[in-house]
Amino acid sequence: MPTPFPLYLITDRHQTAGRPLLDVVGEALAGGVRGVQLREKDLPPRELLELAHALRELTGRFGARLLVNDRVDIALAAKADGVHLGEASIPADAARRLLGPERLIGVSCHSLAGARGAEERGADFITFGPVFFTPSKASYGPPAGVAALAETVRAVTLPVFALGGITRDNVAEVVGAGAAGIALISAIGTAESPREAARNLLSLLPSPSRI
Amino acid sequence: MPTPFPLYLITDRHQTAGRPLLDVVGEALAGGVRGVQLREKDLPPRELLELAHALRELTGRFGARLLVNDRVDIALAAKADGVHLGEASIPADAARRLLGPERLIGVSCHSLAGARGAEERGADFITFGPVFFTPSKASYGPPAGVAALAETVRAVTLPVFALGGITRDNVAEVVGAGAAGIALISAIGTAESPREAARNLLSLLPSPSRI
Repeated sequence: MPTPFPLYLITDRHQTAGRPLLDVVGEALAGGVRGVQLREKDLPPRELLELAHALRELTGRFGARLLVNDRVDIALAAKADGVHLGEASIPADAARRLLGPERLIGVSCHSLAGARGAEERGADFITFGPVFFTPSKASYGPPAGVAALAETVRAVTLPVFALGGITRDNVAEVVGAGAAGIALISAIGTAESPREAARNLLSLLPSPSRI
Repeated sequence: MPTPFPLYLITDRHQTAGRPLLDVVGEALAGGVRGVQLREKDLPPRELLELAHALRELTGRFGARLLVNDRVDIALAAKADGVHLGEASIPADAARRLLGPERLIGVSCHSLAGARGAEERGADFITFGPVFFTPSKASYGPPAGVAALAETVRAVTLPVFALGGITRDNVAEVVGAGAAGIALISAIGTAESPREAARNLLSLLPSPSRI
């Protein structure tokens, strides 16, 4: 990855403990976050683009990467650094043709087969999960667990971000399993101090040069 | 418009009288339809892209234009001829920057102000409606009526397609009000013979050279 970010913050404006999303993301950036995924599935495209523009400005101030979930067009329109694709999104190779070689493509994977498929289709990195139980990912089925994460890390050459129920208490486990980083929503979004939460998590993660 | 199509077919795979969507569209194309909008709001993006590819192949056989509702990225990935934007979609000028000058941008308008805004932002044509009552557009409020259609036609230089409750019984009214064409779903999708329905409607519409 051109700019590594061991801590990948996924937005959810419904998980900010009532604070404006931009405030929470700004605090997380101040705490060291350098990768942000805009993921607001219930926002109409026009409003999503407006939010993407605002986040582009904000992340740019910190030299942080901004990825947009699912919508390649909105990523391009907002001059984001890439997209993050889910299982129902267009395939990574189709997105690559629209985005060109420089922009980042992350892919959410829930199985080893999915991870291999994402690698074959030219993803730059994947998230793998849910590793632990988390209410926001309950619809993806039971947690995959740390062993499955480790197996996936061994099976692909891409950086693998652990996702789902990650907290400071289990970061060491996923790092031990070979995760290049972690992706999360609530552990920062709902933290009393998103800045402190980001800083604490980053102190437990591999340094960017290890990715 | 580079290739005029006085009859603009909007897809809805739930309004095909139980037939495969591609069959219905194929029949409509055989009946003379030369503009198709892929609009399947409840289809995940990956499946929408697959359907767009299939429709691109099918419309291409007839020299017909294919537009994709809302998703500029899917329009680009499927090599469609353009997009059709709704009120909640990204603005036409943002779409234009992604699509370039050649591809078509249609915009759904429900008011005179909306039509003027679409023109200012560089739309190629607009649909205006609902002109008459139609269950699928009931959420947009009461029908605008033929007088409002005529007022909109006079206020903008763009081609205006009448939309909403258009049938062979009222086509003459909207043509009389200055509509360049009509946009519809069910009058073709659910017709016993989509081919005959398209042919009949086209016989009541302005010839392409008048657009």
